[in-house]
Amino acid sequence: MNQITDELLRLISANPIDGKSAFNIREDSQCAGRQSTENISIENKEGAPGIVIRVKPGTKGETVYIPACVTHAGVDDLVYNDFYIGEGADVTVQAGCGVHSEGEEQARHNGIHRFFLEKNAKVLYLEKHIATGNGTGEKRIDPVTDIELAEGASLEMDTVQLGGVTSTTRKTRAVLQKDARLVVRERIMTDGDEYARTDFVVRMEGEGGACDLVSRSVARGNSRQEFYSTIKGNAPCTGHSECDAILAENGKVLAQPGLEANHVDAQLIHEAAIGKIAGEQLLKLRTLGLTSEEAEEKIIQGFLK
Amino acid sequence: MNQITDELLRLISANPIDGKSAFNIREDSQCAGRQSTENISIENKEGAPGIVIRVKPGTKGETVYIPACVTHAGVDDLVYNDFYIGEGADVTVQAGCGVHSEGEEQARHNGIHRFFLEKNAKVLYLEKHIATGNGTGEKRIDPVTDIELAEGASLEMDTVQLGGVTSTTRKTRAVLQKDARLVVRERIMTDGDEYARTDFVVRMEGEGGACDLVSRSVARGNSRQEFYSTIKGNAPCTGHSECDAILAENGKVLAQPGLEANHVDAQLIHEAAIGKIAGEQLLKLRTLGLTSEEAEEKIIQGFLK
Repeated sequence: MNQITDELLRLISANPIDGKSAFNIREDSQCAGRQSTENISIENKEGAPGIVIRVKPGTKGETVYIPACVTHAGVDDLVYNDFYIGEGADVTVQAGCGVHSEGEEQARHNGIHRFFLEKNAKVLYLEKHIATGNGTGEKRIDPVTDIELAEGASLEMDTVQLGGVTSTTRKTRAVLQKDARLVVRERIMTDGDEYARTDFVVRMEGEGGACDLVSRSVARGNSRQEFYSTIKGNAPCTGHSECDAILAENGKVLAQPGLEANHVDAQLIHEAAIGKIAGEQLLKLRTLGLTSEEAEEKIIQGFLK
Repeated sequence: MNQITDELLRLISANPIDGKSAFNIREDSQCAGRQSTENISIENKEGAPGIVIRVKPGTKGETVYIPACVTHAGVDDLVYNDFYIGEGADVTVQAGCGVHSEGEEQARHNGIHRFFLEKNAKVLYLEKHIATGNGTGEKRIDPVTDIELAEGASLEMDTVQLGGVTSTTRKTRAVLQKDARLVVRERIMTDGDEYARTDFVVRMEGEGGACDLVSRSVARGNSRQEFYSTIKGNAPCTGHSECDAILAENGKVLAQPGLEANHVDAQLIHEAAIGKIAGEQLLKLRTLGLTSEEAEEKIIQGFLK
């Protein structure tokens, strides 16, 4: 494992990998370390780059770490990771991706994650994306997340992209059966000439399904963000989505959230707000002694927290 | 003017045509009556079916009536009406369209209305759509509304479609200059196998522009509605859109409202809610002695008022 990977892992990890847990570290399209445990096995995927993670039914309280790093320009990393979460399991998946480049060529990570949760299984999915380095080539992270939730299963996705990624297209698809539950918390900050696109499609097919998507974003510099979502209620279910964006400098944001009620007992709600930080909020912090830059920074940090 | 037109006019007119005002009655693609006044002239459009309405600068308090009726199957009425509203004028335009059919062929009205409001001009635009008769052929009303608002101009559009229209596609486009203001109130009810599609695109190009779109709809029977909107803020401006839909029986609704902030001082907000009438609302009215059908009817009437 090289020093850049070491540094990237520090940046993208909410919690450091501990010695007892299952993990797989991907470095420039290679495996830089792997460990399975009694309850969580990690194996190579057949026929395509990537891994298959299997969590035994009933496994509780364990975490599996699967970070991926691209450490130099000219790497175009494509990986397929499949998660099979057994009935009644309750685990944390800590993913995350770091891209570092000092070169002129593109450096890219494209991770396609598929989650298959069996009955009453539960997953907390943590995903943090960052890019570093002074390379002039594009630094791209294009995650695809496909989620299938069986009866009573639930997945909570906490996804953060805080800086340096030149371009990202983030696609998330989910299908919820009876009483399944999906919660997504997305936080994105773009600056410079960065571009970020988010695209959620959630289908609720079973009675009692519930989904809650909350996206918070900050667009600074000349950056541009696009947010698309579609929540389809094909059964008695509840869906909520919320999309709040703060603009600064010449940041631009497009939000196009869709609700599709195909069942009379589908209850769907959406809110969106785009604007810059209110003058009175800044004024309040400035009267406490902060400069206007410090005040803006404080508000943005609070908003993305 | 035939008897069906007479009946349709009664249904689509918020206020009856009075003898002093400017009016043009369109019946089965022909002119069934016209009057200009000192301040409001109505003339045939050159090179296309339709009329040109010119309102003199400074005209205040006058109303122009331009209803259109299709009274039998087999009519496909296409009309282009242009409105030139002079500086500082403040007038009401009462449009509206009725389609009646007892036949198997399609009966359709397709009205393309263009509004050009000069500086500080003000228009209240009332539009009511209805279809009647037992014809098995499609009864279609497909209005297109194009609005250009010069500095300080404002237009308020009140558009209602309450029943009988088999299929409708309603397109509204508006461009707002400095300090211009657009207010839209849309109310749609569909039943049976009806289909209604609404599509708003509003561009705010000048500082101080403001737009407020509120759509309320009820989808009953096997009917299907689609709501699309895009509010583009290309200057310091404020935009709000709201889309509330009530589902009954097998009604289906898709709502896809878009916000596009291309200027740091654009403040855009959206809310949407789709669902059936809450049980406790119905219960409250039933404890007052209403049957559940009466209670539902009362709530829907209040919602669309």
